[in-house]
Amino acid sequence: MYLRNNNANRVAIIGASGYGGIQCLRLLNEHPQFEVTFLGGYKTASKNWNELAPFLQLNDNQIIQAPDPDLIAEKADFALLSLPNGLSSSLTPELLQRGLRIVDLSADYRYRSLEQWSEFYSLEAQKLNRTDNTLCAEAIYGIPEWNQQEITNAKLVACPGCFPTAGLLPLMPFVKQGLVENEGIIIDAKSGTSGGGRNPKEHLLLAECSEAISPYGVIGHRHTSEIEQQLEFISGQKIQIQFTPHLVPMVRGLLSTTYCRLRDPGLTAEDCRTVIEAVYRDKSTIEILPVGIYPSTKWVRYTNKILISIQVDKRNGRLIILSVIDNLIKGQSGQAIQNLNLMAGLNHELGLPLLTYYP
Amino acid sequence: MYLRNNNANRVAIIGASGYGGIQCLRLLNEHPQFEVTFLGGYKTASKNWNELAPFLQLNDNQIIQAPDPDLIAEKADFALLSLPNGLSSSLTPELLQRGLRIVDLSADYRYRSLEQWSEFYSLEAQKLNRTDNTLCAEAIYGIPEWNQQEITNAKLVACPGCFPTAGLLPLMPFVKQGLVENEGIIIDAKSGTSGGGRNPKEHLLLAECSEAISPYGVIGHRHTSEIEQQLEFISGQKIQIQFTPHLVPMVRGLLSTTYCRLRDPGLTAEDCRTVIEAVYRDKSTIEILPVGIYPSTKWVRYTNKILISIQVDKRNGRLIILSVIDNLIKGQSGQAIQNLNLMAGLNHELGLPLLTYYP
Amino acid sequence: MYLRNNNANRVAIIGASGYGGIQCLRLLNEHPQFEVTFLGGYKTASKNWNELAPFLQLNDNQIIQAPDPDLIAEKADFALLSLPNGLSSSLTPELLQRGLRIVDLSADYRYRSLEQWSEFYSLEAQKLNRTDNTLCAEAIYGIPEWNQQEITNAKLVACPGCFPTAGLLPLMPFVKQGLVENEGIIIDAKSGTSGGGRNPKEHLLLAECSEAISPYGVIGHRHTSEIEQQLEFISGQKIQIQFTPHLVPMVRGLLSTTYCRLRDPGLTAEDCRTVIEAVYRDKSTIEILPVGIYPSTKWVRYTNKILISIQVDKRNGRLIILSVIDNLIKGQSGQAIQNLNLMAGLNHELGLPLLTYYP
Amino acid sequence: MYLRNNNANRVAIIGASGYGGIQCLRLLNEHPQFEVTFLGGYKTASKNWNELAPFLQLNDNQIIQAPDPDLIAEKADFALLSLPNGLSSSLTPELLQRGLRIVDLSADYRYRSLEQWSEFYSLEAQKLNRTDNTLCAEAIYGIPEWNQQEITNAKLVACPGCFPTAGLLPLMPFVKQGLVENEGIIIDAKSGTSGGGRNPKEHLLLAECSEAISPYGVIGHRHTSEIEQQLEFISGQKIQIQFTPHLVPMVRGLLSTTYCRLRDPGLTAEDCRTVIEAVYRDKSTIEILPVGIYPSTKWVRYTNKILISIQVDKRNGRLIILSVIDNLIKGQSGQAIQNLNLMAGLNHELGLPLLTYYP
Repeated sequence: MYLRNNNANRVAIIGASGYGGIQCLRLLNEHPQFEVTFLGGYKTASKNWNELAPFLQLNDNQIIQAPDPDLIAEKADFALLSLPNGLSSSLTPELLQRGLRIVDLSADYRYRSLEQWSEFYSLEAQKLNRTDNTLCAEAIYGIPEWNQQEITNAKLVACPGCFPTAGLLPLMPFVKQGLVENEGIIIDAKSGTSGGGRNPKEHLLLAECSEAISPYGVIGHRHTSEIEQQLEFISGQKIQIQFTPHLVPMVRGLLSTTYCRLRDPGLTAEDCRTVIEAVYRDKSTIEILPVGIYPSTKWVRYTNKILISIQVDKRNGRLIILSVIDNLIKGQSGQAIQNLNLMAGLNHELGLPLLTYYP
Repeated sequence: MYLRNNNANRVAIIGASGYGGIQCLRLLNEHPQFEVTFLGGYKTASKNWNELAPFLQLNDNQIIQAPDPDLIAEKADFALLSLPNGLSSSLTPELLQRGLRIVDLSADYRYRSLEQWSEFYSLEAQKLNRTDNTLCAEAIYGIPEWNQQEITNAKLVACPGCFPTAGLLPLMPFVKQGLVENEGIIIDAKSGTSGGGRNPKEHLLLAECSEAISPYGVIGHRHTSEIEQQLEFISGQKIQIQFTPHLVPMVRGLLSTTYCRLRDPGLTAEDCRTVIEAVYRDKSTIEILPVGIYPSTKWVRYTNKILISIQVDKRNGRLIILSVIDNLIKGQSGQAIQNLNLMAGLNHELGLPLLTYYP
Repeated sequence: MYLRNNNANRVAIIGASGYGGIQCLRLLNEHPQFEVTFLGGYKTASKNWNELAPFLQLNDNQIIQAPDPDLIAEKADFALLSLPNGLSSSLTPELLQRGLRIVDLSADYRYRSLEQWSEFYSLEAQKLNRTDNTLCAEAIYGIPEWNQQEITNAKLVACPGCFPTAGLLPLMPFVKQGLVENEGIIIDAKSGTSGGGRNPKEHLLLAECSEAISPYGVIGHRHTSEIEQQLEFISGQKIQIQFTPHLVPMVRGLLSTTYCRLRDPGLTAEDCRTVIEAVYRDKSTIEILPVGIYPSTKWVRYTNKILISIQVDKRNGRLIILSVIDNLIKGQSGQAIQNLNLMAGLNHELGLPLLTYYP
Repeated sequence: MYLRNNNANRVAIIGASGYGGIQCLRLLNEHPQFEVTFLGGYKTASKNWNELAPFLQLNDNQIIQAPDPDLIAEKADFALLSLPNGLSSSLTPELLQRGLRIVDLSADYRYRSLEQWSEFYSLEAQKLNRTDNTLCAEAIYGIPEWNQQEITNAKLVACPGCFPTAGLLPLMPFVKQGLVENEGIIIDAKSGTSGGGRNPKEHLLLAECSEAISPYGVIGHRHTSEIEQQLEFISGQKIQIQFTPHLVPMVRGLLSTTYCRLRDPGLTAEDCRTVIEAVYRDKSTIEILPVGIYPSTKWVRYTNKILISIQVDKRNGRLIILSVIDNLIKGQSGQAIQNLNLMAGLNHELGLPLLTYYP
């Protein structure tokens, strides 16, 4: 485990005061190899971090700066972009030109073409006049336990959304090996409210979403297309999934309940568990639970781990997959730092928490 | 609207200090036609209600009494039984013999045969030596908006569980009319923790289940069989559903997300909405939301209402049904009182709240 | 119980879509004597109520209208104003001129002089150029269980804030009778987040205030002066209290823990309970708990009741008062309707819920 | 910083499956100098840790063992006892005899005499027949930032309760320096429900304590005497405080709002801040916030830190102290490990988290 280039460990975080930025800053603060050398923000520019965030006092109290590409290039080797969708694409080309390597938390480079992105992010597409189709094609969709090699060499990594992370990790091995039918995959997902971000919105007020669970984005949620794109890439076939997200009255945590049908209805839960265990055996960030143990999101809170449980209804050969993550760490910032680790030639799991505090 | 028999409005509540009993007592306290004339309990016998429940002070402070059948028969015309599974079947025959009519909140008479009950409630079956198979066959599974006539004439009504209530009400019209395929129905349900009852258990402590969502009873949950029995009865065909309950960090509320496949993939969401709207048009307890409006459990808290939303994924003809209830009212005590209303010749919705307090 | 004027039962609600307005609408919807004949709002003008509030479907779906004084005067006899501080004072004089009687939920008329108001609401005072000092002096500070006669005859009633309501009701009898020392009264209060209103603010997001308790407005909170003004009015003496509000991770509910010192340290908790019980004996909205029973805010949720518990530390003669209310009902809309009842010559408690749903 | 004895770093945790034990295990698992070599429990004896706690998988999966003194002595140098009150005193003498040094999380050795303990823990005292008065006198009440030297040399350290920790740390400097009046100190404290332990109790169910705040133990709470004993020891004078705990609907966190009166009413908040800042300047576990910044319990969740904010009401010279901790870490297990660190000759803060995850 080494840094390829001893100097290449300076990280800029752009969009530091949102939930993504706060997590990245918190995690990198204890990372043995990286140093946060630049805090960037648009609305918060020129503010003092420790005043802005009394809950996260840093020893080297930094001033948040406007994200000037030249300044960033001078101060950092890597940039972690935690910006609203659309905004990243206006900064990324500038930073790449100046030699920075980028980990992007937004959806801007998750699609392999600008056309696809424009279809699913039409509102953002109308406002912007993006022409960086080439970058879309070059960017790596970074699932560190899946395409490690690509990420290691990438200049630009697009981090998956929180729902795709929890949905794809357990599903990909089965789709890739052709063990499940491509048709009829259903992902019923449940997320804490921090997934909606820190920008105040009525429906995210405690008074509104506490003591309540509700579905949203039924049918049309953007993460549907993101998951489908990746599954199609893996299987080489057209795949349509049913994806329904729900808002759960808790801060953090994301549970994905996935239903699909085994091609061979004779397979047992233990068989299926063996399949996925074999794929992820050496990954400390992925744990396959014993059959019959079902995870709570609480078991992975504040960790960079995904817990997966496999069940099969023998009556009809349906495979049921339960997977839980912390939406802001494994589903966002932690995964981003895994990608950053790989890009820096480090072990993907370096410096990331794997053990929760309970309760 | 009249009471068939002017005297037949005295109600005994057995199991008054559990959540089911508390709700029934709270609701009947404001009911214009019924009077609670007997409070029964095993553990709490001889205790003073107002001391036991400072949160629900009653003007006529009653003493909770041991459930002696003779005494109950003397004091009441109807009995609402809110007892642990199994216990009801030891009291019900005694009460029926003495002429009481019974609304049972437990699972003891939800199955049409003792054999079926014993299969799914094997633990309880082993402890007891039930021989009341005839009663199982005679008992009416009471969904007041569905089989009103049967309930009206019944001596013994078994109230559906909370998950079956939320799952069946929107699904039955489509199954009955053959609009959906019998195969591949998935019900992904989410419930507040009051569904687990008032008896203290570790996993229901706030410290354990707050800030967490988790699945439980995957594959083997008892309500699966209860839902299947009713759907098979309606369709006349074998039906296997996939049912997964989840525990949500809130007190009350139950959301059911149901996935099934339209036989005619050309049907739109509006078409399907019209179908169900037609079936339930005159029921004030059932509201079909406009297409595209998805309900929160908060919208029905403390009410006896079910809100239903219909959506169709045009890409593949999948029907998605969202339904929300208050698990302790529409999913339990309120539905019980609807049944009681019918048995007393009253309008099923009499004396039950339909409007929530928000937020 | 009668309406003085049979026609004078038409109510306009201005500011209908905030939490105060929603509660008033919800409560009046079931009130036996009042009819909501006008829904007014600034931001929501011309919107359809049922579309705006799918959680509170009204049978007579109304259009929200801009609060034009002439139109309001034509449609209503009473106006309930649930507007941001400052805004009410620009509408109230117009409505009074047109003969309406007003119940105001804001702080605009809670102080007996414009000077005092301007001191504590300096921000609002700077924006506006209020000249309605006479109205400030004429307005009645409406605590329906305390100054019923004044309210009955009032044209303009200013409803107390939620913290003053929970703090004053139990404290006033002791201060008035001179049983406690005026010096050293401490009110440590805890409120649910709905008290912060429906307008989205970062610190009221579930992700921010869930799993957390925090003090705010230490020393300088505006409700301090409101409480002091009323205590001084009652005692005829200068009184300074210490008031500290805290934000609690729950939607509704307010607990006030008040510490003061008995002039006669020989008084017992039972003695003190007798004192307050005697004052409020005939008020169904006020319940004094037995000594040693301490209330939870849950016991009064969705009710118009205040529960009060009295304790004395015999070691040092300190009186400790616990009082709980639903901040949006007894602390706001319910109390407003009590005042409205009195103004219309009705029993103050008419049409208001007194029994909670538990749990 | 060194281990006095290189071998003396083996720790036994007795009572491992309660919240105190789980935290100790979690924290020691990442501690650079200690190794947990024995897991003891009464109810859980012979169970496999990883099966019992899927949320806290340990690499060296241990079997929980019955707490046999000889076996513990063979396996460990230190014992962390996280047992119900009373139980510790039956094990502690046995372990001390065998040369172990003990950190006790219970109340058994918090009082300087058996007589005092028996007064406040009368129920436990009746059941047991304790004769270890000498041990009570010898045990050190371990506040690591306060009496470091005594702890370092101690054989038996009694860890303060969570409320005393949050109340005493900010108050002790003012009492010791005679800056506040001894009379009239009020501590109004608010705690998350994990403080009630993991043993299931009705009032700690989410359904009961969610959406609610309530006081408990008004006047008679045991921690009152614990705080008073320590303040009297420091001041050399008789001190009676008023202490009221409240149960808050959150898992972790404890806020203490303390009111007292300055002897010199001319002191400002800044003056008082300077006083306490000077006392704790070199303690990384104690942070004094700038005047006017009030802490949320969320800012210290999952950390071993106490945040303190000082305010003064200039009108009347009242000092208001706000202090927040994580009740299970700084208020229990973290403080225990600080004591353990000192006993082992290490820096008290070694191996303990100081930075929260937010939100």
